[in-house]
Amino acid sequence: MESIADIIDILGTIAFAISGVITATKKRMDLFGILIIATVTSVGGGTLRDLLIGKSPVTWLLNSTFVYIIVITTVVGIIFRKQLRYVRRSLFLFDTIGIALYTITGVEIALLVNLDPVICVALGTITACFGGVIRDILCNEIPVIFRKEIYASACIAGGSLYVILHSYGISSGINAVVSGFVVVLIRTLAVIYELQLPSIYSKAERDQN
Amino acid sequence: MESIADIIDILGTIAFAISGVITATKKRMDLFGILIIATVTSVGGGTLRDLLIGKSPVTWLLNSTFVYIIVITTVVGIIFRKQLRYVRRSLFLFDTIGIALYTITGVEIALLVNLDPVICVALGTITACFGGVIRDILCNEIPVIFRKEIYASACIAGGSLYVILHSYGISSGINAVVSGFVVVLIRTLAVIYELQLPSIYSKAERDQN
Amino acid sequence: MESIADIIDILGTIAFAISGVITATKKRMDLFGILIIATVTSVGGGTLRDLLIGKSPVTWLLNSTFVYIIVITTVVGIIFRKQLRYVRRSLFLFDTIGIALYTITGVEIALLVNLDPVICVALGTITACFGGVIRDILCNEIPVIFRKEIYASACIAGGSLYVILHSYGISSGINAVVSGFVVVLIRTLAVIYELQLPSIYSKAERDQN
Repeated sequence: MESIADIIDILGTIAFAISGVITATKKRMDLFGILIIATVTSVGGGTLRDLLIGKSPVTWLLNSTFVYIIVITTVVGIIFRKQLRYVRRSLFLFDTIGIALYTITGVEIALLVNLDPVICVALGTITACFGGVIRDILCNEIPVIFRKEIYASACIAGGSLYVILHSYGISSGINAVVSGFVVVLIRTLAVIYELQLPSIYSKAERDQN
Repeated sequence: MESIADIIDILGTIAFAISGVITATKKRMDLFGILIIATVTSVGGGTLRDLLIGKSPVTWLLNSTFVYIIVITTVVGIIFRKQLRYVRRSLFLFDTIGIALYTITGVEIALLVNLDPVICVALGTITACFGGVIRDILCNEIPVIFRKEIYASACIAGGSLYVILHSYGISSGINAVVSGFVVVLIRTLAVIYELQLPSIYSKAERDQN
Repeated sequence: MESIADIIDILGTIAFAISGVITATKKRMDLFGILIIATVTSVGGGTLRDLLIGKSPVTWLLNSTFVYIIVITTVVGIIFRKQLRYVRRSLFLFDTIGIALYTITGVEIALLVNLDPVICVALGTITACFGGVIRDILCNEIPVIFRKEIYASACIAGGSLYVILHSYGISSGINAVVSGFVVVLIRTLAVIYELQLPSIYSKAERDQN
């Protein structure tokens, strides 16, 4: 189990780093800029969570393996950046598994410090989503997850389920698999059927922009 | 006294959350994006203060009441967002009382950890103003308080007064009322008489932009 | 030795604050905005480092001298902002010495908490470079060091050298001088000969933007 979680964690890190490489190369950043964006996308969510709950040093400072993985992913990603479009489906898979795993990890860490259930779900969602938010801010864009797609909502749903099952005493291994699967399922269905959150804007309002 | 402070705190939270909803809907964000912007506007300043002084977990993680207030405010704010323009004056009142209260709270917490008076004023101002700064960054705007209006200056004035009266041994209750009132007074006069900080730019410089 | 380091530290703070004043006045910010940008440019990198490793309160809260230096620099910088172009060379010198010093300080603090060598170099680079990154984000620009110039690379080189010499037991005084000199040398040569990181983009890609 441990080793499967590790492998998924590594795949998630790679997927997030690649999404950083894609965004940064679109902005014509140099090597250093791309590396920073890849790193921030991968570790940003967990870092913000650690800062908020007061875990220090933050996790990635204690495990340089992830820094090496991000550096290698960045270099490989840059070299093959034109081919990245052909592996979009695999990337989507990694990314989806990545946010599922990050959500569960975040919720579990928050439960360990005895925070209120709604706060735990918030911290899980932050862990999964805020790497991408910081990536977009550094690239001078409005964060994409604030504008479209069922992304954070999948994390909120899976995180809430985890907290509920946890309160019924379900073991964390089974809980992680079930709740993580719900994140993957919602996210996948949303992309396949192009679901979005119900728009709060009238047609007239949307046309203004 | 305690309950009045609590009520003001809640009104301030609501006012900040609504200012977040207004900014986020202008950017055509979806439900999730609006909720995040409302939350960040409300709790961002206090969170930054807590991180800087090392208080952890940060305050809002320990009191989910504020999360519920923000969620409800966001939903109500979205539904009635077209009517928000008619309650502008009430919103201004809440917001002004909010920054007064946040300034005093920030200064008090900084005094408790024995920081230098000028640092205490800085932390009070950060508590009151940086929620709005982070809101504007997430919405891809230059923070409005960096460009116009006497807003932060009112917080600096009130925070400084609090530190001075504190050094003369004035009780914190009276001090909070007097210093908070100064923030409200300066801010209100500035808006009524359209006062700004003296411009440092020549007419030629301003015309360039 | 102590007093020389202090003087360099003050010169670095001044140089960073002035670079903040220059960027903020270009964006036509008001007095308060300019002061915040100057402060963030000066103390932002060290603050982020302190947050990541869990040092609290963060350094600048404990030493108001730097706040006074930044306030004075901001006021003087605003008054003489048209003359700043004539002292560009001196500013470059301060800034370069500043990033060298900040890099070494960051690496030393990270070594003290026994972090992995590659993490120590990262923290040194963050200390030197992220004040400018936060400055650019607050001014709604893509951080300049992500797009051009050998700036962060000089910090990475000098920081790596420090870590290597440290592992051979070189005393920290000599190490700081040698490694800091390498940062200054690389940065200076890069500017004189207009060196950049090798571009990863083809001519066609660059023309698109």
